[in-house]
Amino acid sequence: MPSSSKTNRRILLASRPNGAPTAENFRTEDATIPALSKGQVLLRVLYLSLDPYMRGRMSAARSYARPVEVGDLMEGGTVAEVVLSRHQDFEPGDVVLSHSGWQSYAVSDGGDLRKLDPSQAPVTTALGVLGMPGFTAYSGLLTIGQPKPGETVVVAAASGAVGSVVGQIAKIKGARVVGIAGGPDKCAFVRDELGFDAVVDHHAQDFEAQLAAVCPDGIDVYFENVGGKVWDAVFPLVNEFARIPVCGLIAQYNHAGDSFPGPDRLPPLMRAILSKSLLVRGFIQREFVDQRPAFYHDVAEWIASGRLRYREDFVDGLDNAPNAFIGLLEGRNFGKLIVRVAGT
Amino acid sequence: MPSSSKTNRRILLASRPNGAPTAENFRTEDATIPALSKGQVLLRVLYLSLDPYMRGRMSAARSYARPVEVGDLMEGGTVAEVVLSRHQDFEPGDVVLSHSGWQSYAVSDGGDLRKLDPSQAPVTTALGVLGMPGFTAYSGLLTIGQPKPGETVVVAAASGAVGSVVGQIAKIKGARVVGIAGGPDKCAFVRDELGFDAVVDHHAQDFEAQLAAVCPDGIDVYFENVGGKVWDAVFPLVNEFARIPVCGLIAQYNHAGDSFPGPDRLPPLMRAILSKSLLVRGFIQREFVDQRPAFYHDVAEWIASGRLRYREDFVDGLDNAPNAFIGLLEGRNFGKLIVRVAGT
Repeated sequence: MPSSSKTNRRILLASRPNGAPTAENFRTEDATIPALSKGQVLLRVLYLSLDPYMRGRMSAARSYARPVEVGDLMEGGTVAEVVLSRHQDFEPGDVVLSHSGWQSYAVSDGGDLRKLDPSQAPVTTALGVLGMPGFTAYSGLLTIGQPKPGETVVVAAASGAVGSVVGQIAKIKGARVVGIAGGPDKCAFVRDELGFDAVVDHHAQDFEAQLAAVCPDGIDVYFENVGGKVWDAVFPLVNEFARIPVCGLIAQYNHAGDSFPGPDRLPPLMRAILSKSLLVRGFIQREFVDQRPAFYHDVAEWIASGRLRYREDFVDGLDNAPNAFIGLLEGRNFGKLIVRVAGT
Repeated sequence: MPSSSKTNRRILLASRPNGAPTAENFRTEDATIPALSKGQVLLRVLYLSLDPYMRGRMSAARSYARPVEVGDLMEGGTVAEVVLSRHQDFEPGDVVLSHSGWQSYAVSDGGDLRKLDPSQAPVTTALGVLGMPGFTAYSGLLTIGQPKPGETVVVAAASGAVGSVVGQIAKIKGARVVGIAGGPDKCAFVRDELGFDAVVDHHAQDFEAQLAAVCPDGIDVYFENVGGKVWDAVFPLVNEFARIPVCGLIAQYNHAGDSFPGPDRLPPLMRAILSKSLLVRGFIQREFVDQRPAFYHDVAEWIASGRLRYREDFVDGLDNAPNAFIGLLEGRNFGKLIVRVAGT
């Protein structure tokens, strides 16, 4: 362990954002690395995952998880290396998936760790395609969306960590897949690299018309991870018995306050739910924990056979995490956003 | 057949309502009774069912069924007596369930008829507790709502044809059941006759607070057949993993136009769907046709054993159907609304 690393750099929630987060909502501190007790390991964080759900943790409102308190460490999934061990199951050099948060070192009793095998897959995939975002896509699409051959599946943020997996699995299941992404590079990637049947740029002036044009048979599954104007474009196109898994609403996470100006879109939504027998179901992947073994099996096989591709977007240095996270909420990332916290 | 009955009185859609229907939206005509062809029967309508869904048929917007065209017969479920038969399966005196609409006579080829046995149950139950409304309650509650013992189930229009059955079945399944009804008589009926655990009068000034008070553990199943202010009172109380079958939205059926003033309640709803993993599912009972035999079996048994009660609200004379229907949309009925079209 190099001496320069012997302080633990940590990024804390300095204040709650009102609207979009800014650099001032984060504070960096250098703490000492705690001594290990028996049964503990010291982890050096290699990679930190940045994900949209973290925006929810920055707000006081209770969601499916408790918020991060002001002054506390920002939470997040990480890949880390064991550097010291007083735990019988771990030894220095082990690489593990942990939930160590936005810091360079962490102490764990091992209960939250899963060992990774770098010879099986790049360890960063444990934060993306073979991790929480991939499992969100897999479980939500297959359990709630249930795409059938020939049906039309639409997914937004289609080049992102979740959307890219949703669309490719829907293709594997025989559906016709339409992606929505922001800008020509992402759209080209979604169409040419990921093999979606069609892609629409949500920056286009005639976005709604373009989406309608590439969904001539309507929409049977809309995997909702965005909300906002994408929802407005999708909504008129959904078919009878459409399924709408809701895993994220990134377009409204930065809305300041609890009130939204009219018109009121609730009555038309409820009317459509009724008259089209729609299914709208929010979820968080951990409720489908029983499907994890099938997920690891299926996705690893699809990656190995070249049927499922992924893209990672690396940012160097923990100090750049706040800015990268702010950019994630604006769609500035291109692929699964990961911070390199330490060299490997 | 008395000579005075030899014209067929029919009630037609005269014009589409803009907001609440009025008497001017209906037109009565006296037509001749058509001669029978081979394979047909002549039906004399005994009872006409009036149901909220008919409001949707009066509008031009396509819903799960085509609208009634202006100038066409108002549609509706009926109990009728065969008065003439040129069909081998039917003979005069047979009583059948039909979908003959708002008229006093109808001709049928038999394909849409189901014979009723007056010795088994009062024939009017085929329009209510043992008919479409009862099956709506049964299938939506058990398939989508899935109440578990000890959970809290809330249903509005609790003294009505659907709500009364929803609540009683939820009780049979071991749930704690809270009804919402309008006025002291209906509330007393729901509590004392139907045996709900609690009932709240939606006319009360402090309706929201009263509902919260009788749902100390939140709401696990909300059977949505009303919308409007009842939804607003229910929404803050729904628990994680709550199920919301949507079978009707009577409070918004009479809204004129397509736009609703703000604030926009869609983003908070979507946020709750996401953060609480809610299930919102619209349905129409016919999609659950496979469950009909179980429905008839179960509900007949529950009625016979006294575990399931029902109340019918009769109106005399087809000419009074429009006014009764207008009242139904305002909650003026008390129990399943049925028009006595002919004496039996």
